Amino acid sequence: MTQETPYFLILSIIFLNTVFATSNYVLDESCGLPNDLKAEIQSYQPIVNKIIKSAVSGPHKSKTYKELADFVDKFGYRISGSENLEHAIDYMLNKSISYKLDNVHGEPVMIPHWVRGHEEATLLSPRETNLSILGLGGSIATPPEGITASVLVVESFDELKNKSNEAKGKIVVFVEEWVNYGVTVKYRDYAAVEGAKVGAVATLIRSVTPFSINSPHTGWQDYSDDVPKIPTAALTVEDAYMLLRMYRRGDKIIIRLKMEAKNMPPVQSRNTISEIEGKQIKDKAVIVSGHLDSWDVGNGAMDDGGGAFISWYSLVLLKSLNIRPRRTIRTILWTGEEPGLVGAVKYSKVHNKDEFVLLMESDEGTFTPEGITFSGTKQANCIMKEILSLLSPINATKLELSNDVGSDISIWSNQGIPMASLLNKNERYFWYHHSNGDTMTVENSDDLDKCLAVWASVAYVVADLSVNLSRL
Amino acid sequence: MTQETPYFLILSIIFLNTVFATSNYVLDESCGLPNDLKAEIQSYQPIVNKIIKSAVSGPHKSKTYKELADFVDKFGYRISGSENLEHAIDYMLNKSISYKLDNVHGEPVMIPHWVRGHEEATLLSPRETNLSILGLGGSIATPPEGITASVLVVESFDELKNKSNEAKGKIVVFVEEWVNYGVTVKYRDYAAVEGAKVGAVATLIRSVTPFSINSPHTGWQDYSDDVPKIPTAALTVEDAYMLLRMYRRGDKIIIRLKMEAKNMPPVQSRNTISEIEGKQIKDKAVIVSGHLDSWDVGNGAMDDGGGAFISWYSLVLLKSLNIRPRRTIRTILWTGEEPGLVGAVKYSKVHNKDEFVLLMESDEGTFTPEGITFSGTKQANCIMKEILSLLSPINATKLELSNDVGSDISIWSNQGIPMASLLNKNERYFWYHHSNGDTMTVENSDDLDKCLAVWASVAYVVADLSVNLSRL
Repeated sequence: MTQETPYFLILSIIFLNTVFATSNYVLDESCGLPNDLKAEIQSYQPIVNKIIKSAVSGPHKSKTYKELADFVDKFGYRISGSENLEHAIDYMLNKSISYKLDNVHGEPVMIPHWVRGHEEATLLSPRETNLSILGLGGSIATPPEGITASVLVVESFDELKNKSNEAKGKIVVFVEEWVNYGVTVKYRDYAAVEGAKVGAVATLIRSVTPFSINSPHTGWQDYSDDVPKIPTAALTVEDAYMLLRMYRRGDKIIIRLKMEAKNMPPVQSRNTISEIEGKQIKDKAVIVSGHLDSWDVGNGAMDDGGGAFISWYSLVLLKSLNIRPRRTIRTILWTGEEPGLVGAVKYSKVHNKDEFVLLMESDEGTFTPEGITFSGTKQANCIMKEILSLLSPINATKLELSNDVGSDISIWSNQGIPMASLLNKNERYFWYHHSNGDTMTVENSDDLDKCLAVWASVAYVVADLSVNLSRL
Repeated sequence: MTQETPYFLILSIIFLNTVFATSNYVLDESCGLPNDLKAEIQSYQPIVNKIIKSAVSGPHKSKTYKELADFVDKFGYRISGSENLEHAIDYMLNKSISYKLDNVHGEPVMIPHWVRGHEEATLLSPRETNLSILGLGGSIATPPEGITASVLVVESFDELKNKSNEAKGKIVVFVEEWVNYGVTVKYRDYAAVEGAKVGAVATLIRSVTPFSINSPHTGWQDYSDDVPKIPTAALTVEDAYMLLRMYRRGDKIIIRLKMEAKNMPPVQSRNTISEIEGKQIKDKAVIVSGHLDSWDVGNGAMDDGGGAFISWYSLVLLKSLNIRPRRTIRTILWTGEEPGLVGAVKYSKVHNKDEFVLLMESDEGTFTPEGITFSGTKQANCIMKEILSLLSPINATKLELSNDVGSDISIWSNQGIPMASLLNKNERYFWYHHSNGDTMTVENSDDLDKCLAVWASVAYVVADLSVNLSRL
C-alpha cells in the first residue's frame, strides 16, 4: 500500500537518501558562548559522571544488553503488520510501567502489512543451482508456477537504458557497484520500476551491502503507478557477480523465480511512548527514539533493537538515579519505520513540532560511540559541542554536523528543530542490515553501556539546561 | 564409511590437528650456505623476475582468476563421491592436455560418498523459529519424522562430563569458544561421539568459525565404533549463542531436527596429474598441489579452488615461458580431501616417497602471499630462505618454519621430506571455510597472480637447482 501513497513515496525517498548521507558541514569555532552558559554546562560534569559510572561500571552495567537480549530472544523479528510486533509493543509498555516511567502509552498508527511467504530463485541455465534471495518489501508475488525467463544483466540504470530493447520479457538483474547506502540503495528502491519501464517481467538486484557471506539483504522498495508492478528481490553479492560473469561470457542465463509475497490491508499498530516528566516545563520534551519494528529476517537486534533500547533504557537509568530534568524526556519507540517511517509520519501529524526541544534518534548502530551527529543553529551547535565535552570519560566527545540526520526524525527535516543521531563506529553496519545476520551477536554489551551513557547524558543536559537550543 | 576405517580416522585426526597449527620454530641464522650455492640461487633472479612479470603484469595477468572462475561457475561445488566432481576432473584433464602439459592422467582412488539430503532444525520452545544448520559430513540421518527433544547446552566437553547425568535423551548443543581452527575443530570432530557417550540423541555445534553472518559451516566428523552413531550438525554462531542465553535463563528448550543424510558406497575418483617433465632427472619431482573436491555448500572457490589452480596454472605459466627445469614439476589435484585426505593417502601407498624432492600444497587460502611455510632440515631451510629472497619484487620473501605443514601433504609428515605451504594473509579464511560464502567473491585476481608467481618460482628453482634439499 505504501507504494500507492504519494506522500509515503516522497517520505520514503527522503528516508532512503538521508540515511548515512554525507552532507556534513563544519563547526564555526567562534562559538562565543556566554561564560555563564559554558560554566552552567560544565557544572553538569558530576551528574554526567554519575550517569556514565552507573551505565558502564555501576548497577546498570550490562543491563541494556540483557534487556535487549531478553526482548530479541523472546520475540525474534517484528515486521510491520505482524501480531508479533504488537505483542512486542505490549511487552515494552508493560516493562515501562514496571519501571514506573511516566505517561506510558501507545499512540495508534495504521501501518503496512506485507507478508513474504515462500520464495525461491533457481538458476536453470547455464547450470542448475539454487540462488539465495530475499524478496523486497512491498513486492508482488509471481504466478504460482513462478516466472521462468532469460536474464539481462546490467551494472547500472544507464546501462539498462542503453540495452532497453533487450529487456522485454526478461528478468533484469542489476549488479550495481556498492558506493555507500545513500547512493546505492536506489537500485533496491527503483529496480522494479526501471525494469518495468523497459518491459522486464521481474527484477533482481545485488544486495545493498559492502560485504557478504552469501547473505541476501531485503528492504522496502517502491512501485510507480505509471508502469506495471513486477516481482522484485535481492540476490547475494556472490550470486550477482556470478551472473555478471556468466553474462559477460555470453552464457544463456535462465532463472525461475517464485515468490508468494502478499500486500495485505494495513493494520493498527502503536508508537510506544514513555517519559520522565519535566519538573518545570512538562510540555516541552527532548525526544529519544528508535524503532521497534524490524525486517522479517534476522532478529532486528541492531536495526533497531539497539537504538530503541538505549533510548528506552535512558529513562530507566535516569529514573533509577532519581534524576528529573527541568523539561520532559520522552522516549518514542517508532512503529512501521521499515515500510517508510509510517509511525513517525503519523506522530508528526498529531503532535505540534513546538513540543520538541531536541529530536534524538539512534538507528545507525550502537557500536562504540564517538559522539553525536547534529543538525542545528550555530548557537545549538556550540551548546552541543560543550555538552559533548562532558563525555570525555568515555571518549565520545565528537560533534559531527550534518544537514541530514536520522531516518524517522528526518520527517521533521528543514523545520528548524535541533536533531541528533548517535555517532558510532558503525563501519560494519551494512554487513548485517536487513539480513539474517542482524542478531544479538552484532551487539556488544560494553558498547551498549557507553551508547546508553551518551544518550542519557545528552538528553538529560539538554532537557535540564536553563536555555533552549535555538531554532532555525 | 570413513568413520568405520580406523586408518582414515587416525589420518583425519592428524589432518584436523595440523591444519593451521602453530608449532613453528625459528631459523638458525648461521646458515653458512656455500658461496657458490648462494650465487647459484641468486643467478635465478632474472628468470624469477620473468615469471613474476608474466604473472602479475604480462600475458598471464588475471588468467588464474579467469580459469578458476570459468571452472567454478561451470561446476559449482564438487563434493567427494559426486558425478560433478568426476566431470570437473575430466575438465581439468582435458584442459591440461589442451595446454600440452606432460604425462596428463588420472590415478584411481576410492572415495567416500556422503549425501546431505534435506535437513532442517526448528526451535519449538521457548519460541518457534527456524535454525540455520548444516549437517556434518558423514552424519547419519534422523528418522523421517525427525528427532524432537529437550536441549542441554554446554560450552565444552568438560562441562558435558560434569552434566553427563542430564544428557540422556537430549539434543546436546555445544557452544564452544573459538580459539583457532586447530584447537576448536575438535568440537566438530567429536561432538557426536562425546554426546553419544552420555546418551544424547543428537548433537549440534556452534559452527567452527570466528565470524558469521548467520552462516553455518559444515565439515567432516568422525564416529566411534564404541558408541551409537547419532545425527550431528552445525548451528550458526548466532543461533548457538541464542540457545546458550536461553539455557542460562532457564528456558525450556526443545528442538526438532530432521536430516536425510546418507552414507553411500564409496565411488571411484581420481587424483589429477600433470607435469613439466624434467630435462635431466625425470623421476624426481617437486610436487605442487591442491585439492579439487570441495564441500557441498558454496562453490569451493577458496577451499581449494584457489590452491588447486595456482598449482595447476604454475605448469601452464612455465610451459608458456618455455622453462623446463632439471627435475620434474608435478601438479597433483587431490581428490577426496574433505572426507579425510583420501586421495593423498592412496597416492602415498602407490608412490615411493623418494620421488618427491619437495612437497608443496596450497590449501589455506590464496590471499595476498607473504612467502612460504616450510618444514625441512637446516640446510633446506637456508636454501629456501635464499630462494624466497628472489621474491622481493612482490614482497613475498617470508620463510615461516613449522613442523606442521599442509593438509593433504601432512600424510608424509615425519618422513623427512621437505614440505611447503603457501603463506598468505588468510586472516579471514575461516569466515568462509566450508560455508556458502566460499565463492569466487573471496578470490582476488591480483592476489592470485602473486600467489602464482610465488608458487611457480619456488617450484621451478627447487626443481632446477644443482643440489637437492636435504632430508631429515
